[in-house]
Amino acid sequence: MHFQVLKEDTATKARLGLLRTPHGAVETPVFMDVGTLGTVKALEPRDLAETGAQVVLGNTYHLLLRPGPDVIAAAGGLHRFMRWDGPILTDSGGFQVFSLAKMRKLTEEGCRFSSHIDGHEFFLGPKESMAMQRVLGSDIAMVFDECLPYPCDRPRAEKSVAQTLRWARASKDQPHADGQLVFGIVQGGVYADLRRMCAEELVKIGFDGYAIGGVSVGEPEEEMYRAVDASVPFLPKDSPRYVMGLGVMHQMAECVARGVDMFDCVIPTRIARHGTAITRKGNVAIKAAKWIFDQGPVEEGCDCYCCRNFSRSYVRHLLACNEILGLRLLTIHNVCALNRFMKEMRAAIADGTFFEWKEQARKDTKSNA
Amino acid sequence: MHFQVLKEDTATKARLGLLRTPHGAVETPVFMDVGTLGTVKALEPRDLAETGAQVVLGNTYHLLLRPGPDVIAAAGGLHRFMRWDGPILTDSGGFQVFSLAKMRKLTEEGCRFSSHIDGHEFFLGPKESMAMQRVLGSDIAMVFDECLPYPCDRPRAEKSVAQTLRWARASKDQPHADGQLVFGIVQGGVYADLRRMCAEELVKIGFDGYAIGGVSVGEPEEEMYRAVDASVPFLPKDSPRYVMGLGVMHQMAECVARGVDMFDCVIPTRIARHGTAITRKGNVAIKAAKWIFDQGPVEEGCDCYCCRNFSRSYVRHLLACNEILGLRLLTIHNVCALNRFMKEMRAAIADGTFFEWKEQARKDTKSNA
Repeated sequence: MHFQVLKEDTATKARLGLLRTPHGAVETPVFMDVGTLGTVKALEPRDLAETGAQVVLGNTYHLLLRPGPDVIAAAGGLHRFMRWDGPILTDSGGFQVFSLAKMRKLTEEGCRFSSHIDGHEFFLGPKESMAMQRVLGSDIAMVFDECLPYPCDRPRAEKSVAQTLRWARASKDQPHADGQLVFGIVQGGVYADLRRMCAEELVKIGFDGYAIGGVSVGEPEEEMYRAVDASVPFLPKDSPRYVMGLGVMHQMAECVARGVDMFDCVIPTRIARHGTAITRKGNVAIKAAKWIFDQGPVEEGCDCYCCRNFSRSYVRHLLACNEILGLRLLTIHNVCALNRFMKEMRAAIADGTFFEWKEQARKDTKSNA
Repeated sequence: MHFQVLKEDTATKARLGLLRTPHGAVETPVFMDVGTLGTVKALEPRDLAETGAQVVLGNTYHLLLRPGPDVIAAAGGLHRFMRWDGPILTDSGGFQVFSLAKMRKLTEEGCRFSSHIDGHEFFLGPKESMAMQRVLGSDIAMVFDECLPYPCDRPRAEKSVAQTLRWARASKDQPHADGQLVFGIVQGGVYADLRRMCAEELVKIGFDGYAIGGVSVGEPEEEMYRAVDASVPFLPKDSPRYVMGLGVMHQMAECVARGVDMFDCVIPTRIARHGTAITRKGNVAIKAAKWIFDQGPVEEGCDCYCCRNFSRSYVRHLLACNEILGLRLLTIHNVCALNRFMKEMRAAIADGTFFEWKEQARKDTKSNA
């Protein structure tokens, strides 16, 4: 089996797992770093390894537009193109088509849309998405789906879930890369019965893992947990579960307590570029004038390259001057901070203290939201 | 003595030297990487070490404006602020005051000017420049001077050289950091007799090294060599000679043949950010569409991190998408390419083949200009 639950928590639904992929095993719960265009922004493969990153996420939509499938095929796939030898998960492009591109026509086969870069027209449906993910050669491919916005009325949600299920089946029926795992995506918005129905139908089709999509799209935090709770009980215990687009520390901990194993988010790299550090005690605006003379590291006790070597004073100066090095050092730190948080979480599950750990972590990291 | 000539070429005036500084010895001829604001743009200290960089240049003007002397003093100097343990040379700020800032008032004591960032007023003269360079704690400080533009008429050049000489003496008379070497700067524009007079007067004052300033400011290449030829014969053989602001491969080789030991320039880092690679066979626009499928490295045979790992196809893609990693990889390559060129040059002097090497290098690298 590609997924093994190594330990189940008793006080919560948290579990410790091992996910085997063609490019190595992944310890779960795991946070995956987003490498939109074939690079986790500002970082190199060696930085990822150093910060404890396990999985890189590639965006099918972005890579379809630039550099396009032919260029990546010429390199022999995304791993060789970007020189990341670890596991890669690719999304289906559905989310970006519906949120970023200009929709031209939506049919049973998929969507015709205009690129947000230059207006060039593309078509993406289950067939095209799977073909692109096959070219990318990702370890985990996601089915093509429609991500519902929040709020969304019931009739639209029903119609969309039906479409997502037909696309899920069509995605599964396409040929995949050697050893590529394929994950289904549970949609249904805030409607618990739709979530359950979607989960049950996906399980009938049968996937290597199951994502919960359409959360962290602007809904209140409690709605997100309700969506997770409405989906997880109907997913197989021996398959990995993945909440898409989530990277806030205490929210990941809450989802893990509800039985989730995987996460991804652009937050750590994006807020780094805006001058914000993620720390175990909340977010810190390193650009702030209060750090101008501060000789301490971005985060006390952190062993990342940034914190081992540089002061807040120096990093603040670089950010104030828009120096590339400032963005890069904070990105290194933020990725490291999130990966360390997940490592801590796994250790807490392993030694049976996860519930207490989570309660404390929620208090400590509340300001990360 | 802080400078030792290890070998003199017989066919040219090239020499192999060793310059001892408080932060280590420098093999000359050397190219120094420019770290304007306390970072060689996009690079970390560990990258500099890996690319064979020996000396980092810090800009007194830029660091005076941001973050200012108090912040650097709080860190214990520029080495500790930016975590570069090797030698640092700082310029005097004169060049930027006259080229970048808005001049308010010029007196015997120096210049009142408005910052090019926010219009804030500052005063910089020999006293203030030396005080700032003492705070920076550089291994080599440059005297405060006026860099003449090109073209410049004779009366103005005469007046300026007289001013530069008075400022040179005043700079020498200021207190300096422990072990800090102080270099004079030969000015005089295209007027050979002014260059000679300036050089002779500086030698009378007595400095640890001598720069040739006011070259590579827009004059024809032959004028630059004439300015070097008009200065070098009047400088001590046992002192290092430094042509400021020059970083074009064949021009550095020509200057070395004329007895020059040190160079600096923003070229390798600046053109990297514009998508151009420096190679031993000329400059290459990596952004060009012709590289879209190219699986070769940026430069065949190069052992830098960029060339060891990534294809032109990948780097071109990153540059096309304005990904930070693209700028960074090309910067790593360009710095490495220039440092390797200087290493090759030193080897050619050491084994007595410098003249032939230089003639071939001029042909090979002409397109770098």
